[in-house]
Amino acid sequence: MDLKPTKPLSGFIELLPAQQRFVDACVAKMQEKVRIAGFEYVDLPAIERAEVLTDAEDWSETATQMFLFQKGDTKMGLRYDGTVGLSRFVAGHLNDLTFPCRLTQFSKRYRGERPQKGRYRELYQLDFDILGLGGLSSNYDAEIVKMAADIYDSIPEVVGDYVINIGSRTLWNAFAKYLNLSKEQIDNTFVLIDKKDKLEPADFEAGLIESAGEEAARQILSVFSEGYKSLIGKASELDAAIAELDEFIALLSSMSIKNAKLNLATMRGLGYYDGIVYEAVSLTYPEIGSIGGGGRYGNLVSRFSKTSVIGSGYAIGTSRMLITALDRVDLSEFETSVDVAVLVMGQEQAAYAMNVLSQLRNAGIVAVPYLDAEKKFKNQMEFADKIKCKFSLIIGEDEVKSQEITVKNMASGEQQKMNIQAAIKYIK
Amino acid sequence: MDLKPTKPLSGFIELLPAQQRFVDACVAKMQEKVRIAGFEYVDLPAIERAEVLTDAEDWSETATQMFLFQKGDTKMGLRYDGTVGLSRFVAGHLNDLTFPCRLTQFSKRYRGERPQKGRYRELYQLDFDILGLGGLSSNYDAEIVKMAADIYDSIPEVVGDYVINIGSRTLWNAFAKYLNLSKEQIDNTFVLIDKKDKLEPADFEAGLIESAGEEAARQILSVFSEGYKSLIGKASELDAAIAELDEFIALLSSMSIKNAKLNLATMRGLGYYDGIVYEAVSLTYPEIGSIGGGGRYGNLVSRFSKTSVIGSGYAIGTSRMLITALDRVDLSEFETSVDVAVLVMGQEQAAYAMNVLSQLRNAGIVAVPYLDAEKKFKNQMEFADKIKCKFSLIIGEDEVKSQEITVKNMASGEQQKMNIQAAIKYIK
Repeated sequence: MDLKPTKPLSGFIELLPAQQRFVDACVAKMQEKVRIAGFEYVDLPAIERAEVLTDAEDWSETATQMFLFQKGDTKMGLRYDGTVGLSRFVAGHLNDLTFPCRLTQFSKRYRGERPQKGRYRELYQLDFDILGLGGLSSNYDAEIVKMAADIYDSIPEVVGDYVINIGSRTLWNAFAKYLNLSKEQIDNTFVLIDKKDKLEPADFEAGLIESAGEEAARQILSVFSEGYKSLIGKASELDAAIAELDEFIALLSSMSIKNAKLNLATMRGLGYYDGIVYEAVSLTYPEIGSIGGGGRYGNLVSRFSKTSVIGSGYAIGTSRMLITALDRVDLSEFETSVDVAVLVMGQEQAAYAMNVLSQLRNAGIVAVPYLDAEKKFKNQMEFADKIKCKFSLIIGEDEVKSQEITVKNMASGEQQKMNIQAAIKYIK
Repeated sequence: MDLKPTKPLSGFIELLPAQQRFVDACVAKMQEKVRIAGFEYVDLPAIERAEVLTDAEDWSETATQMFLFQKGDTKMGLRYDGTVGLSRFVAGHLNDLTFPCRLTQFSKRYRGERPQKGRYRELYQLDFDILGLGGLSSNYDAEIVKMAADIYDSIPEVVGDYVINIGSRTLWNAFAKYLNLSKEQIDNTFVLIDKKDKLEPADFEAGLIESAGEEAARQILSVFSEGYKSLIGKASELDAAIAELDEFIALLSSMSIKNAKLNLATMRGLGYYDGIVYEAVSLTYPEIGSIGGGGRYGNLVSRFSKTSVIGSGYAIGTSRMLITALDRVDLSEFETSVDVAVLVMGQEQAAYAMNVLSQLRNAGIVAVPYLDAEKKFKNQMEFADKIKCKFSLIIGEDEVKSQEITVKNMASGEQQKMNIQAAIKYIK
């Protein structure tokens, strides 16, 4: 039989233990910031009904971006993000949750798109969302931005300097309505605005003219050159959007939330955002791309419930961020998780070694035995060297007789015989 | 538009926050036992190539048990267990790992089968495996059984009294060869033996006769009545298997591993086990069914590599175990994770409240704000009551003026004004 492939599918990640320990340590720091802010962890299915994941009209397009499949009569697929499943969950548990409810997730998400460098088909996101019944103060949006900053600040070696760009879908929606753009024009124009910072000014202008027409393009460009306040007085809906954005910027400033900055080109691609939106980028490591983002979704839960539930949330794509960092951080402190190797000189000492092992572990010492007892001492020592443990405990005939162990300090090479209690004290 | 369904697909689990906290606390205890034993965490893709998941010949049958799908030209599917992916990973990293290597996983697994009560289509398993190059002492199998016992002992409220049944695929394979059974007879007979403890003796006997023929059935039955040692002297392969099992039982006993018991009907359904096997059941809560199991797999890695790698591992299906326990454990200590609610009397105090919040969180206090500042005090207090926090911090105009906060002890109802530092001290 031919050998099967040992590499994972392209776009899928697997790390070696030291890399994984670094990633886990960073995630733990990030999750701690979310825990201390009182978010409750929920663990939702990775598979959802297809109708939950996507609206029927978009099926053909979203099918290429998602993993969709059929089992029996049921169309289903792997989640693309955390917000849609969370909205379903909240809508189904209106009486079980206290509102505003604060929920966090950390789970794998799936992208069916063709894998490219730095784009994964399976990736982790850390989400935190606040959902209110009937309404939700924009103070919560500010709290979310503050939390995102706290999280980034907890892993400076990964994120470096960063900025959280603040935008407003409310403003653009109202402006598009004022400009009388069609749905298709809106979609194309918003996609273009989202890409503005990556485009040459002339290309951006040409694109705008193509997607929105000459007059609308001119007016949109003037928002970027004159500022959004130049729109005051054109339409009441637009005025309300301007006031909302003004107040939010003032709020962030009053709460001394550093690193947050107005950037009208911030759109967030996903369809469900309809208020203030955020998207963060690292200034030190721009190659990561987006390091997270989110916004307010006022209408997503309404797909599942007649009760009005307003959400505001943030998702950090931890996979790309942390895997990019692997190339530049020092992994030496993550090289080992083992304190002690227990080396067993012969099969007759195996039972005693197992007993020693239990006592070490019960005392909180990470202890790994080398139980191929027939192997030479040299092989056993090589094993201890390779796993980079701090101490080796050598157990031979003499040690069993005297109910002791020989403890070798792997750094100094020093060796001494002692009983187990003394060894535990010495190692700790 | 019609409302979309709020329930997850049948066979998929989602828990409310208090339930989730209980589950997470139990998993953390179990994982700690694995960590202290020096196992390194690996996080493998949930999606594998179809050819990795299954051998082509079994395709039609396994396709119904698995989630298999196609993306572009690639057939792929969701992992059924952890061992197959781990074997692929180890085979691909022979030079990056130190052998015997100790690897652990905790991840979701997928079963395509029709959901039934207590059978999930998405479930968590905690795996720990030891893999050796060219060989692996059976001392490691004993260590694994000991670890399983340590893990079960760490969550007595979930597991109760339990037994880890020890069986031998080596013995049954050698005996089937001695009996000259065909592949089909072996498959049917082994499935039957695996179910022995659930069958009436007469049904077991009738089944054996049907699957293996009258004479073979008689001989198999005599193994159960006379013990496996009655097979000594029939064939050299059989004698070797008997010696292996004898030695292993003696080893477990010399290592004083309680709760492990020989049970020849222990087979483990999966195809890749080929040595000593284990399967644990709770005696106190038999309704859980299997609470974990594993065994030695000498040939699985050889599907991916010409280098001989021998594995021995154990998997604990945590989902069924822990969800069954939810019906009987006291969840009151998991009802809240919040220490403090910060109540804000008006929008003018929001910025000060955010500052207080940061200081509380930096001091390690889990603090949740109620930021719908326009809501009445009564609503704010109701929120604090509902989230079951220990203290409420009330921030109004006076508090901002004097740079203090009013701290209310939610249990006693006592209220006093103090500065933030004093409040942090008081709360801690």
